[in-house]
Amino acid sequence: MDNFYFYSPTYFVFGKDEENRTGELVKKFGGSKVLVHYGGGSVVRSGLLDRVKKSLTNAGIEYVELGGVKPNPRSGLVYEGIDLCRAEGVDFVLAVGGGSTIDSAKAIAAGTVYDGDFWDFYCGKYIDKALPIGTILTIAAAGSEGSGDSVITNENGMFKRGATGDGIRPTFSILNPQLTTTLPPYQTACGITDIMAHLMERYLTNTDDVVTTDRMIEGLLLAMIEEGPKVIADPLDYEARANIMWAGMMAHNNSCGVGRSQDWNSHDIEHELSALYDCAHGAGLAVTFPAYLSFAYKHDVKRLVQWAVRVWGCEDSGDDEATVAEGIRRFREFLKAIGMPGSITEFGGKAEDIDHLAHSACFGNGRDGYLHGFVKLSEDDVKEIYRRML
Amino acid sequence: MDNFYFYSPTYFVFGKDEENRTGELVKKFGGSKVLVHYGGGSVVRSGLLDRVKKSLTNAGIEYVELGGVKPNPRSGLVYEGIDLCRAEGVDFVLAVGGGSTIDSAKAIAAGTVYDGDFWDFYCGKYIDKALPIGTILTIAAAGSEGSGDSVITNENGMFKRGATGDGIRPTFSILNPQLTTTLPPYQTACGITDIMAHLMERYLTNTDDVVTTDRMIEGLLLAMIEEGPKVIADPLDYEARANIMWAGMMAHNNSCGVGRSQDWNSHDIEHELSALYDCAHGAGLAVTFPAYLSFAYKHDVKRLVQWAVRVWGCEDSGDDEATVAEGIRRFREFLKAIGMPGSITEFGGKAEDIDHLAHSACFGNGRDGYLHGFVKLSEDDVKEIYRRML
Repeated sequence: MDNFYFYSPTYFVFGKDEENRTGELVKKFGGSKVLVHYGGGSVVRSGLLDRVKKSLTNAGIEYVELGGVKPNPRSGLVYEGIDLCRAEGVDFVLAVGGGSTIDSAKAIAAGTVYDGDFWDFYCGKYIDKALPIGTILTIAAAGSEGSGDSVITNENGMFKRGATGDGIRPTFSILNPQLTTTLPPYQTACGITDIMAHLMERYLTNTDDVVTTDRMIEGLLLAMIEEGPKVIADPLDYEARANIMWAGMMAHNNSCGVGRSQDWNSHDIEHELSALYDCAHGAGLAVTFPAYLSFAYKHDVKRLVQWAVRVWGCEDSGDDEATVAEGIRRFREFLKAIGMPGSITEFGGKAEDIDHLAHSACFGNGRDGYLHGFVKLSEDDVKEIYRRML
Repeated sequence: MDNFYFYSPTYFVFGKDEENRTGELVKKFGGSKVLVHYGGGSVVRSGLLDRVKKSLTNAGIEYVELGGVKPNPRSGLVYEGIDLCRAEGVDFVLAVGGGSTIDSAKAIAAGTVYDGDFWDFYCGKYIDKALPIGTILTIAAAGSEGSGDSVITNENGMFKRGATGDGIRPTFSILNPQLTTTLPPYQTACGITDIMAHLMERYLTNTDDVVTTDRMIEGLLLAMIEEGPKVIADPLDYEARANIMWAGMMAHNNSCGVGRSQDWNSHDIEHELSALYDCAHGAGLAVTFPAYLSFAYKHDVKRLVQWAVRVWGCEDSGDDEATVAEGIRRFREFLKAIGMPGSITEFGGKAEDIDHLAHSACFGNGRDGYLHGFVKLSEDDVKEIYRRML
């Protein structure tokens, strides 16, 4: 196990109706003037936004609003948010929504107290300071409610970059599973896939002797396999929603990723799919992960046998290749059963795009022609992985 | 799943040699004058205390010292620590040792900033404020390095009480598995048992639909079953020590105990054993837990079948009673294999003490004649459980 530090100081408030405590929580953590940040649509229609604002008012907290966050949140709105926070003397940023809204709020919170251009953080500058951030989560997926990460798309070129730092770990996060019951099955399944991918990116490691975190990841994957189909069958299943929501946070606050190298090749490969085809990130991951595993498993067959046996209940027949193949087959079958695509053609992917996709994955974002995760992948390797997604 | 809040703001620094960063960490979290609190013996002999003091001096941090913490830490030393902190203007309390030292440090940190008698906290007053606390952990067992709990023995009557509150969650905790390699096998095994007991106390729940936390607990138990025997066979096995140390923290910071009722009957039953026979807490738990399970399993056979199958690899034969019995047998066998006692007679327990033990368990600490955990236990029930430990 490698040396590490782990810091997850967020105050998590979980359960039915807890969003009505928003005002009280902002007050507890010292906020007096809040930016309420959100997308639009369902947060407004469902009445959630009104309940949150009422809670702030009841606690005597002033606020200003900034809606309009889009999936793959944009830099333009971040600049707008920073200007607004400075002009209005905002001292607390509240995100009401999913991963995109939270990531946008994190960028605004960091940018407001920074003298330079907030984009510096998305070019590698560590974020150690930001306005305190609160989140009210409406989809179990990205794990941004408990992480120190944020991804923003720069509108000047439309490219995505990530930033990181303890400064943007949320001060509090409210997780009410009821708020996720109105999500359509497809979006729910995308969230489930994203959570499982966050676990798999940590599972695929080159660090030896990581028994404790291996077992935690396997446990969380098993929980997703048990609970995922329940919410697809019955979107109103509160208990399954609750189990998925807590697993989604645990999958990405890094409790089970500490002290080990992590992969993230699949995320890099997927980002090209959602950029080109505008598919949902989770749907892209559903296609990417099995294809990637079928290519990369040879790098550490024993680890993948362990995964097939413990997570997918495969028999350890002694024929490692066959065991891994069966594990991947069951993974694909699971993703299909919850409604995820099995091929990029299902969201418009074409064989003739593969050269572009692979080149962009390997040379975009200033990369050196390779992806350096669990396995080092060349451009040709990445092409082969994309071909397996057809 | 029940509503809950979860808050574990401790900054964990994990790995080889990390205690040399103590001064830097105290500074990072605003300390300028430290109380260095410890027991004695090995912390001094091993040179750890000197390394820690050197690290403080190198960072320009002043300190005063208070040693002498005993297992089952006493109120007298806490009062002494509070007086010392006030007289010297201490603004940071640093515990160097195991659970007893950390619990004592927590009491001092809370008492120093409190106008009344610190014992109020151990009579039920919630601790929301204390001096910041740092810990340098030397044994994987109690989980106090990541918890908001502390247990102190009042010398005026020699009774134990617990206090709790977010105010005493450590600000930082340094976990270096190397520091645990000099522990004798017996103490190591007691620690392993304590960690498994912390997991089991959470596993035994009356809350339905807790799949995610069930799976996490099972994963952590499996890690202990895999790694425990390795450190008993080879105390210098760093990797196994590391896995156990992180599992010990995760077992008790409540990540996997949220949203569910918990048990703690076994801890209450054990406390009488360590009080009367002065046995190690872990050794008492090793005898208590299997006896308790053999009595209590009927309350929710299906849950115990799940445990036997998933944790101990028992076959689910359909004969639930037999499956649970086999799980308990494997649990006993595991504890015996790591060197734990299988009967209270091994540390001086006698049949004629049982009436006293059961009465004290059920009526001590202001109790109402029953223990109210997973199963409600009467005095007669508790007698029967003690009889099964002979």
